[in-house]
Parts: sequence; C-alpha cells; structure tokens
Amino acid sequence: MVSQKYKDMLQAKSVIREMSAWANKRGSEIGYDNVFDYSLGNPSVPVPQAFTDKMIELLQTRDTMELHGYSQSQGIPSVRAKFAEYLNKTYGMNYTAEHIFMTTGAAGAVAHAVRVVTQPGDEVITFAPFFPEYNHYINQSGAVLKIVPADTESFQINFEAFEQMINEKTMAILVNTPNNPSGIVYSAETLTKLASVLEAKQKEYGHDIFIISDEPYRDIVFDGVDAPYVSKFYDNTLSCYSFAKSLSIPGERLGYVAANPKCTDAELISVMCSQVSRGIGHNCPPSIIQIAVAEVLGLAADLDVYEKNMKLLYDELVSLGFTCVKPGGTFYIFPKALEEDSIAFCQKALKYDLVLVPGDSFGCPGYFRMAYCVTTEKVERSLAALRRFVEAEYR
Amino acid sequence: MVSQKYKDMLQAKSVIREMSAWANKRGSEIGYDNVFDYSLGNPSVPVPQAFTDKMIELLQTRDTMELHGYSQSQGIPSVRAKFAEYLNKTYGMNYTAEHIFMTTGAAGAVAHAVRVVTQPGDEVITFAPFFPEYNHYINQSGAVLKIVPADTESFQINFEAFEQMINEKTMAILVNTPNNPSGIVYSAETLTKLASVLEAKQKEYGHDIFIISDEPYRDIVFDGVDAPYVSKFYDNTLSCYSFAKSLSIPGERLGYVAANPKCTDAELISVMCSQVSRGIGHNCPPSIIQIAVAEVLGLAADLDVYEKNMKLLYDELVSLGFTCVKPGGTFYIFPKALEEDSIAFCQKALKYDLVLVPGDSFGCPGYFRMAYCVTTEKVERSLAALRRFVEAEYR
Repeated sequence: MVSQKYKDMLQAKSVIREMSAWANKRGSEIGYDNVFDYSLGNPSVPVPQAFTDKMIELLQTRDTMELHGYSQSQGIPSVRAKFAEYLNKTYGMNYTAEHIFMTTGAAGAVAHAVRVVTQPGDEVITFAPFFPEYNHYINQSGAVLKIVPADTESFQINFEAFEQMINEKTMAILVNTPNNPSGIVYSAETLTKLASVLEAKQKEYGHDIFIISDEPYRDIVFDGVDAPYVSKFYDNTLSCYSFAKSLSIPGERLGYVAANPKCTDAELISVMCSQVSRGIGHNCPPSIIQIAVAEVLGLAADLDVYEKNMKLLYDELVSLGFTCVKPGGTFYIFPKALEEDSIAFCQKALKYDLVLVPGDSFGCPGYFRMAYCVTTEKVERSLAALRRFVEAEYR
Repeated sequence: MVSQKYKDMLQAKSVIREMSAWANKRGSEIGYDNVFDYSLGNPSVPVPQAFTDKMIELLQTRDTMELHGYSQSQGIPSVRAKFAEYLNKTYGMNYTAEHIFMTTGAAGAVAHAVRVVTQPGDEVITFAPFFPEYNHYINQSGAVLKIVPADTESFQINFEAFEQMINEKTMAILVNTPNNPSGIVYSAETLTKLASVLEAKQKEYGHDIFIISDEPYRDIVFDGVDAPYVSKFYDNTLSCYSFAKSLSIPGERLGYVAANPKCTDAELISVMCSQVSRGIGHNCPPSIIQIAVAEVLGLAADLDVYEKNMKLLYDELVSLGFTCVKPGGTFYIFPKALEEDSIAFCQKALKYDLVLVPGDSFGCPGYFRMAYCVTTEKVERSLAALRRFVEAEYR
C-alpha cells in the first residue's frame, strides 16, 4: 500500500517554495524582471569558463568508459586523493583519500553523516536560525532534532541555552557556518568554546559526540572576515561540503564528507557512508563531474557579486532603521522584521513586489531572510521598493 | 556514537567483489588481459559518439545556469515530459510528466519505489535468482524481503512456491526482467499469470499490491526474443529504468521510476518519491546528464556485442555438457555448476584464470554467473581455458 508517512509529508507546505511560487506567478503577470525575488538560495553567477572548457576537453580526449564508468561507491579514488590534498594544503589538515566520501551535494553529505554517527532515538542539536531541510535529514534517519534558540544579538551560539539542552542522548551537533539564513560566520572564539563544551560532555557521558559541519558556503566569505575551518577545533568533526555554490553548479550534485583523521573510527566513516548509500540505491555522484571538478580544484565562480549585493542591501536596511547583523559570507541577510509577526510583514512586502521569507521556518520568528543571489542591477532597483514598503507600512 | 548497524554491515562480504578483487590482483601478476574476468556487470561497449557530441554541443551553446542549475527534486519538467512521451510511443502507454520521477539509476529507482509502497514490517517478495543488492534496498527501508525459490527448469516464476509465500503482509513484488543473473526474459504468459494472481490477492486482502519492475536491461534483448513491458500487464506497476547499460554510462547515475497512470495514487507516486529523496539529501540526478539523455532518447550503444558473446559462451557451455537455459537478454548467463557446491566449483575455476561467481548470493546455490560484458576477443580466448578446466577437474 502507498505509504501514509510520505503521503502526509505532502501536506506540509514549504514557506520558501510558496514564496518562490508567488514570485513566478507574479512574474508571469508583470515580467519576472520586475519582481524583487529574494526567496530562493540558487547561485546566480555564471559557471567559470575554465570548468566548461575542462568538461569539453574531457569529452574530446578521454576514453568514454573511464569518463562515464561506475565510480566506486565511496567515489573515484584519484578524485578523493586530490580533494584530501587540497584540504590539507588549504587548512593544514592531514586527510588521505580514505577520509573522503563523495556525495550528492552538502545535503547528501549531512544526511549520510547523521546516519553514520547516530542511531534511531538519538538526539542531534542544531542552532537557530537553521536550514529547515535539516528536519528531513534527521527525522527520516530516526534521530531527533533539537533546536537551540538563536542568539539574536550576534547569531553566534547561544551557549546558555545549548548547555541546558545537551544531554546523554546527544550524539551529534549540526553546525552551519557561514550560516544560512543569517550569513554569519562563527568566530574562532565560538568554535573554541563549542569544542571545549563538547570535550567535557564526551568525558561526562562516556561516549563520542560528533560535530557535523555543513559548509556549502565555505568559499563565500567577505573581505576582512576570518572564517575558521571547524574541523581544526575539534577532532570528532565530519565536514560536509558542496561545489554547488563555489562553482555555481548546484544541479550537478557534487559534494563530500571529510572525516577528521583524528576522529573516532576515522578510517571507517567513509566505508560506513557507502553502506548508507547502498540502502538507498544511491551509490555515487556522477563520474564526469567528479573527474572535471577534481581537475579544476580551487577554481571558483565570480563570487564578488554576492559581497557587492550584501553591501548595497545592508546599508539600505540600516538606513531604513532595520536591526541587522552584518553578514560575513553566503548570499543571505537576516534582518529583524518591523513588526513582531514576520509572516504578516512578508505578506505586506508582496504588495511592493518584494519577495522575502519569514524567519519562522528557520526557527527564528520575528526575522526574515533575503537571498541576494540575484543580479546587482536588480538589487539596486529593489532598494526603492524597499523604501516605499517601509515608509507606507511602518511610518 | 558511530552507528553499530552500519559498522556491522562492513563485515558482510560480497562474493562478487571478492571475485573481482581476485581478478584484479591476478591481473597485476599475469596481465589483466590474461584473466578471464566474468565477475562484474559493468558495461563494456563504448558510449555512442552521438551522446558525447550532444554533451559537447550543450556545453558550447547552452546558458550555464540552465545547464548546471538545480533541477526540481522530481527531475527537470521538460525531461520528464520527453521520457513519458518516449515510453508512450514505444510501449503504447499513457504516461505524462507527472508519472516520471528521475533517480540515480535503477538502484535509486527501486529503493525509492519500495519506500513509497511499503511501511516498515511489510513484506516484499522477489524471485530467485535475484540481484543481491535488493537485500539492502529493502532491509534499510524497514520492509522484509522474501525470496521465492527458483524454477531452475526455465528461470521463469515458480508459481507454486510464490502462492504459498504471498500473504496479507505482502505489499510489493519485485521483478527483474531481463534478469540478472539468469539472462532470462519473463514471457507474456508468465506476466499474465503473475498479474492474475495479484489481482485476486488484492481483492482477497483488501489492499494494493504493487509490482516494482527493475528494468535496467530492458534494451538488451536478443534476436527473436519477445520482451513484454511489465506495466502493460498490471496497473499497479512502478517501472524502474536506468540508462547505465543502454547508453554505457553507469557512472552518470541516471534512471527513473515510471508510475503506471492507472495505478493507485498515480499522480502522487512521483511527489512521494521526492519526499523520500529529501530525507537522504539526494534531491535529483545531475542536470546536464538529464538534459543530454533527453536529447538523444532512443539512442543506444552497440549492444550487439553482448549477443555475440552470449552465443559463443552458450554453445561452448552446452558442448561441454553444462545444463544451461539460453539467455534472452542482458549480459549474463547462469549455468548449473558441475558439482553441487558452486562455491567450490568457482574456486577451482580460478586455477584456470576463470573468474566466475557462485549462485549462492543470488539465492540459487549450485549455479554460477558469468557476466560477459567483456570483449568478444577475450570471450574467444576464454573458451580454451573453460575446456581445460572442465576436462581436468570433471572428466
């Protein structure tokens, strides 16, 4: 019989998708160019030409069986070795190929990591504001997601609430820095403190507690911001990365789990991930994309656009009187709404063709997210609409 | 803590992999060309040039954001529509885009289909000989896999044993035709009888029973063999396809679930599959591959090689006295071993550099599988080794 569980899931609406659908519908009426659609976190900068050139070169020169053949379920060994080497060079780590498990994006990476370090009934803690898909990765694994309320002053970690929430059932902490939706980068101070709490709790409870570090925005960090590598602070760390944003290739679904070589069972994490994959028939990300990305490691799309957009928006928001923590990276900004009910606030904004997402589904009501992965020209045009909205509704 | 469940899975050895590892090790000693490696079911014919040309054309002409952008989680709408249209034209069906869910290969398709039509504790029946990875797709979903013993006369369905096994807990029947490992194609008679049993049981039990039809070898069918489309025989059918074999692109992980438009909740199957995907962070197969394959639908690699190899092997096996049902498709043949213990039989074959896989893990001890997706030249050279093996060990 058709599964009631998945049928029920169809009822749960995604606010982000609803907002995006509204934007598309409105776009069909007045032209999409005239809708200031800040709803979706889709990269908007072109794929680097060097990546396209590399793909064409591979197709023209490589043996097709090698290019399109099965990859081992952990990933192509030479690709995993190159990723390990790149991480070692960039972050001063000691990975080898065996610590790298290739996944379909950071989403696949987090979902696999959760299954490897928890059992059904275990608790996983994350910090608001957080990416709402975490609910699905964790709930479907059988573990339970617990949310630490946001520290809205800085969007760093609310340690007081965290220390009240952590308990013997806590097996993993899911962190996301640079953060979706706040755009905030966790400081070295935050990560040092987090590591020290976890070290103490591991001893107290007599079991491992892993950090699962969701890092799809690791390479989108703004000028002057220090973005520490989470795994440097805590041995039991599984880093989850994706090339979706840095290379602007979200549809090609390439990412990885990198297990800190000093973590418990470090040499087993990748093979265990491949057992998880096996059960869902998933096996490995596309071979040609694995090979192509490994050949252009370190290459990035022109990510400066996001910083330019952030500055335009941040300055305007502050000048309009919004309370707003300045993003250190990503392509998100997360200001406080001008009324307590951020859903009502975002509804009113639609009258001005401004598509914003209320903070409620990110575990942070009263705030709203703008995904400024749009053209700078559109950001510029949106500022007048933002001003009209605020002046008409809140002055 | 690291999950004991996945840790335990690492202990379970795969006989196919062990045989393949032996072949590679032996290859490093005497040259891989001199090892008659019939262990792995990896396509051996080149990717069609027209596919490579299409990939290059797309990379040279399409907007990169369109080519590499996020696909919707069910797949790119225009691609799903093209696949539906192709199936309708080829098999006289009435699919629309909404019935098609894009997956990472047939493995992903089967694993998703199982989760959509069963709940934990439900039973899924399959027929020996069967692809051993089914154990993982089903066990990890929480359902229970039941195996109907083989009809070794024909490798069609053993209906007597099947009707004893089916019960109120049976929610799905997993069929695989053309079959790995037997190479047999289910006849129209077999499928008609299967449908009629299931129609009766649906009424008796008062619930749906779905056929999950695993069809990665659908396009590898030999001259004169009629390969009926399973979904034509039974409304509650989910067809699971992969382009891995027909286009020789197993590493690119492209397949789909096609829900028969007359099945229960036909319009919900695909959206429910995307909820399953969501939980594993998987979301969608690579965009560029979806787009490229949709542009060359109907194209196939030169699959005639497999039939040539089959004939060479079948004739030699029969002339050596093996009992063997002639394959109707795939690139597998599944003869009876010359002693009861097929593991011992396959061990002895290694002395002659013949790498065969015992039937035990396919649920059919006493038989062995040869995957003849190797060059015809190698098949020809292997015949002498096969003769030496049989004459030395069994005459």
